[in-house]
Formats: sequence, structure tokens, C-alpha cells
Amino acid sequence: MKRDITDRDHALFEAGIKLGALYHQFVGTPLNLETLEGLEKTIEKSISLQPYLRKINVSINRDMVRDKLGRSGYCELEGKMLEVHAEIVYGSARAKVGLRYDKELDYPLMYIEEISKMG
Amino acid sequence: MKRDITDRDHALFEAGIKLGALYHQFVGTPLNLETLEGLEKTIEKSISLQPYLRKINVSINRDMVRDKLGRSGYCELEGKMLEVHAEIVYGSARAKVGLRYDKELDYPLMYIEEISKMG
Amino acid sequence: MKRDITDRDHALFEAGIKLGALYHQFVGTPLNLETLEGLEKTIEKSISLQPYLRKINVSINRDMVRDKLGRSGYCELEGKMLEVHAEIVYGSARAKVGLRYDKELDYPLMYIEEISKMG
Amino acid sequence: MKRDITDRDHALFEAGIKLGALYHQFVGTPLNLETLEGLEKTIEKSISLQPYLRKINVSINRDMVRDKLGRSGYCELEGKMLEVHAEIVYGSARAKVGLRYDKELDYPLMYIEEISKMG
Repeated sequence: MKRDITDRDHALFEAGIKLGALYHQFVGTPLNLETLEGLEKTIEKSISLQPYLRKINVSINRDMVRDKLGRSGYCELEGKMLEVHAEIVYGSARAKVGLRYDKELDYPLMYIEEISKMG
Repeated sequence: MKRDITDRDHALFEAGIKLGALYHQFVGTPLNLETLEGLEKTIEKSISLQPYLRKINVSINRDMVRDKLGRSGYCELEGKMLEVHAEIVYGSARAKVGLRYDKELDYPLMYIEEISKMG
Repeated sequence: MKRDITDRDHALFEAGIKLGALYHQFVGTPLNLETLEGLEKTIEKSISLQPYLRKINVSINRDMVRDKLGRSGYCELEGKMLEVHAEIVYGSARAKVGLRYDKELDYPLMYIEEISKMG
Repeated sequence: MKRDITDRDHALFEAGIKLGALYHQFVGTPLNLETLEGLEKTIEKSISLQPYLRKINVSINRDMVRDKLGRSGYCELEGKMLEVHAEIVYGSARAKVGLRYDKELDYPLMYIEEISKMG
């Protein structure tokens, strides 16, 4: 059975793991506009340690954070604030995946952007 | 580009998301041998709500929990205590994936068990 | 120094720990109206394992969950959905504390309800 | 009843909240020796946003991280790796609290270091 599993399969599986992990590890973290950038970098560096991750870019939506600050002066990271682009390479396969807020569905959507053969 | 992405690709991507989410949402939860089974069920039901998940089985290693109880009478869920089997169906593709502790690597390993065409 | 720290001090400190832990462990968990009650029980049992906790009641706001379900049929646990009442006993001191959504502040408020001497 | 609750009570309650939150938000985060310091700062800054926190210092035990790296080259933040010192000020009361690994109990212990009147 195992021999039927391709590099492409693994690349997509690993890509999914990274997005699921990122989301559920960091949602809930207190932040404001001053700490936002540092948090983006920490998330990127942390997820970059996981295997097969080649590139990652994490942006937290500044407008949403600003709207949520309220009297307390901070808010918590929500899934819909996240925009992520990640590239996973497994053997000869490269998967580009992302996470973005889908306004129409009001849902933080994880999606496959591209899957290609390297080399 | 998008038309090149197959059901099989999606099934594996979604499967990865579920395992990453499960792991990082629930690791750290206090438990002991009395609450273990309820926690297993709660994890299963919670992750089952996510799209494309067809089946899931979560087992928490009773021996590891027992070893960790100590004087406090409880411990926290660790990744290595988890054994998970999940089945994701996306269109015509079915992915069976798992999470288990790899003793040799001392690492909670997420892996693809099988990927097949339905119907 | 240590001798100046009273049972009352410890009871309140421990009470705060429980609320902070509960909140940041479980926020983000997928749920819907079918799994809501099971999740409430799991949170209660899990936090009950921590030291000095005598009683705990966790309610997740059904109306908020219903409003958030959307097309996906589920949502994620948010801090503002939680109403918690907990009683911590440390030596001769009993602290009753809570967590509830403060609408005016749009903030999940943790508060001391009562602190009393037992016996 | 409410009038019986003192600044000292509030300071200790708030101190507990911060430690519980910190612990359950960040345990599980992937890290290695290169990302460790950035993670310490991110935790400090994030928790500093919460009300009444005056000072916080977070140290992650480098030796424990090194021991856990294994073949994967990274590990996950565990409660026992954390050493935290925090100072909370509420009105006229100042609470110094901490979190450290108690080797004998094999338990990450949260404790009150000092509680004093300001001014």
C-alpha cells in the first residue's frame, strides 16, 4: 500500500498539518498593534521548525485588530485575523497553501494554491 | 492552475489539517484515568465537526498517563500519549491517516496510512 | 516573607490560575449545539483535576453558538461564549469566582464573587 | 459582599489568571535553541497586555530544550521548561508570583513570592 503514496500526497498532508497546528496553537494569544508584528514573526519561526516547511508568511489583519481593541487596549488572536501563505516541499513535490478569511462564508478558509513538481 | 488539484490532493490536505488542529488544540489539557475516556470522546466529537471528516478514533495511552500522575493525581495531555486514526473523504478520494508515538524517534508521528478511490 | 501569605491569598491566586487555564486551553475548540454539553462537562472535569478546586460550573452560551454556526455547521469556542462559576478552597479560605461576558465592555470578564472564611 | 474584596485579593486573583493563561496558551509551541529567545519575548509581550501586569520575565530552560531536540531538530514547549516571574499591581497592592519546575514533585509549580502594600 505504502508504495502508492507519492511525494505529492505527502506534501499536501504535511501542508495541512502546518496550517491546522498554527491555527490551534496561536488562536487566543493576546495582542495589540504594537505586538502584532513580533507575534507574526514568532508564529513564522515556530512553524518553520516543523519538517518539510520551506517558506511561510503570516500576516495578522491590522484593521480587525484595531476594531477589536476596545477599552482594554488589546484583543485576542482570532482565526479570521490570519492570512498565511506557506510552501511545503516533500521530495520532488512542492505544495503552496494558504489560510485566509472568507468574508462571504465568514470562515477562515484553508486552501491549496498550487501543487507542482520541482526540478 | 486550480483545475489541476484533485480530490486526492484535497483529501490529504484536509487530513493534515485535522491532525494538526487536534494536536495543538488539546495538548496541555489536564487529565487522569477517570477523565481520560471522556476526553477521548470530546476530542473525537469536536474534530468530527470539521469538514470532510468521515471517521475518527482517538486513544490516549493509559500507561503513559498512569506513569505521569505523580503526587498531584493528574497530568497533562502530551502529544506522545495520542493515538489517532482518521478517515477523510473528499469527493471520490478517501484518505486514512494517523498519529502515533514513534518510540525510536521519540516523536509523535503523523502519517498517511492509505489513500484510495471510492466507489 | 512567606509567613505573611494567608489562606485567603492562596485561594484567590489558585482561583485565578483555574480561570486563566480554562480559558486559554479550550478557546478555539470546534463545537456546535450537539457537542456543546459534552464540551461543558469535559472542561469542568478537566479543570476539576487541578488542586484546590471544589466546584465548577461551565455554561457555553447557546445563542452565541447558534449565531456563529454559519454554513459550515459548527463554530469555535470563544471566550465571550463562556460563563463559569468556580469555588476554590485553600485551608480555611473559600473563594467564589466567575467568568462572564461583559456586553458593555465587549470583554470576557473574570471576577471575584465572594471570599469567605470556612468553618 | 463586594466591599469586602480588597486590592490585595484582586492582585492575587489577577496574578493567578496571568500564569494560567500564559501556560495554557503557549505550551505546545514548537521551538529550538534559535527560536527560544524570540518566543520568551513574545510570551512576555503578549501577557503584558493583560490588565494589572506590571513586570514579567519568562525564561525557557535551555538544557531541557537541548535534551528534547532529538532527530527532528526541534521540540515543543512544555510547562516544566518555563520559569516565570511576574509582578501584578492592583490599586495599592503588589503581588509577585512565579512559575518554576519543582523537580521533587516533577510538577510545574505556580507560587506566590511576595504580597505587599505599595506607597
